[in-house]
Amino acid sequence: MRTVQEDVEIALARVLRTSEPLSLTVAGRTDAGVHARGQVAHLDVPGHIWAAAAGAALRRLNGVLAPDVRVHAIGQVPAEFDARFSALWRRYTYRVCDSQEHADPLRRHDTLWHRWPVDAELMNEAAAACLGEHDFAAFCRRREGASTVRELLRLDWQRDEAGVVTGTVVADAFCHNMVRALAGALLAVGDGRKPARWVADVLAARVRDPAVVVGPPHPLCLDQVGYPADADLAARALLTRRQRSGSGL
Amino acid sequence: MRTVQEDVEIALARVLRTSEPLSLTVAGRTDAGVHARGQVAHLDVPGHIWAAAAGAALRRLNGVLAPDVRVHAIGQVPAEFDARFSALWRRYTYRVCDSQEHADPLRRHDTLWHRWPVDAELMNEAAAACLGEHDFAAFCRRREGASTVRELLRLDWQRDEAGVVTGTVVADAFCHNMVRALAGALLAVGDGRKPARWVADVLAARVRDPAVVVGPPHPLCLDQVGYPADADLAARALLTRRQRSGSGL
Repeated sequence: MRTVQEDVEIALARVLRTSEPLSLTVAGRTDAGVHARGQVAHLDVPGHIWAAAAGAALRRLNGVLAPDVRVHAIGQVPAEFDARFSALWRRYTYRVCDSQEHADPLRRHDTLWHRWPVDAELMNEAAAACLGEHDFAAFCRRREGASTVRELLRLDWQRDEAGVVTGTVVADAFCHNMVRALAGALLAVGDGRKPARWVADVLAARVRDPAVVVGPPHPLCLDQVGYPADADLAARALLTRRQRSGSGL
Repeated sequence: MRTVQEDVEIALARVLRTSEPLSLTVAGRTDAGVHARGQVAHLDVPGHIWAAAAGAALRRLNGVLAPDVRVHAIGQVPAEFDARFSALWRRYTYRVCDSQEHADPLRRHDTLWHRWPVDAELMNEAAAACLGEHDFAAFCRRREGASTVRELLRLDWQRDEAGVVTGTVVADAFCHNMVRALAGALLAVGDGRKPARWVADVLAARVRDPAVVVGPPHPLCLDQVGYPADADLAARALLTRRQRSGSGL
């Protein structure tokens, strides 16, 4: 299966003119089918290789990559920078269109066409119960030895003038499937299949609930990753590694 | 070749349960590859057929159509309504991304990735010379016996916060290729290949200029079609038919 990471690694090897296999560390290891507009990745290369390639690297990378993968910027970072473990937060969005008159075929690849109209206010009421630090095991695919405790900094839904309801979610990090499971649960509240307080009950139970239908991946997009100032990069990476055990994405 | 019009005609025949061939009249007969978010079309059907289908028509139509074609609304109009000849104006947009850091793969199907940065102010300066009623023969593919006189009501470019420069153009109607030729000419001004006053010179010459490169179709979208109040529909259609001779789109 083709992956964005592998595409970029192959393109980088060509642009850096190296035959050694390159391995990117990425901030958000998204599920297959999830989009990323604000992905961040790092890799280590010898200084002389970067110095030779730096000037034309961005233009050449995008020349080599297929049009469905673009690199927005490339540059040198402090040695302490780790795309994954230095990150303070990730922001994702989830796009839902709930009416026939607003369905836009041009956005069908990144928007869920939901069968029933949803009430964004009800979804926000249910979402509020998830804010803060919780064990999100109910909304995660379990992985051996990995913590499912995360701090949810933002989770709300807004309807725009084009009739699309967009969920915005920010956390220090997310477990596997977590955003899609939260979106699926909140949509069940929004369209009236479940009462608003059901989401809080599911969360409190801390076990995977089969009634939570994981939303499809294509409406989900990693929009931005936040990092601390350069001086705090190393401390942040150390803290993150201690808190989790290989489960952050 | 598959066309949106044919797809909709076939779907309508199924939904209206009629074996007679249906023929839509559309407001904007766009070139292949051009998108339409605000297309309008009409057709005549016997009253009893519409009465039987009306209630579920929208839901059933979208159930039959492929996901890249959606119908937003369907309803009965006054007998004098003609989707093409009653229209007062058409509004199109043309999306251009001129920098690597803003290229968005999710919008690659409706956005031009332009090689060089463009100056929207220069493009607006050049565009202003085209406003009003002119013979747009220089920007049209000629058709025998068809007038190329059109009234351009709006033509300007704006850069949004995502770095995309969008041209918005409104006219009573457009000749074949006209918006794409105007966009191509203005982009040549925007990226410095031509001086701003070149566009006015091309327009004034009233013959097709080979130096005008017609822009690609995929960044172009028919966004909205304006109609008069019901009482003025018939008069508008009569006027339009007189002014043009089968060339309006």
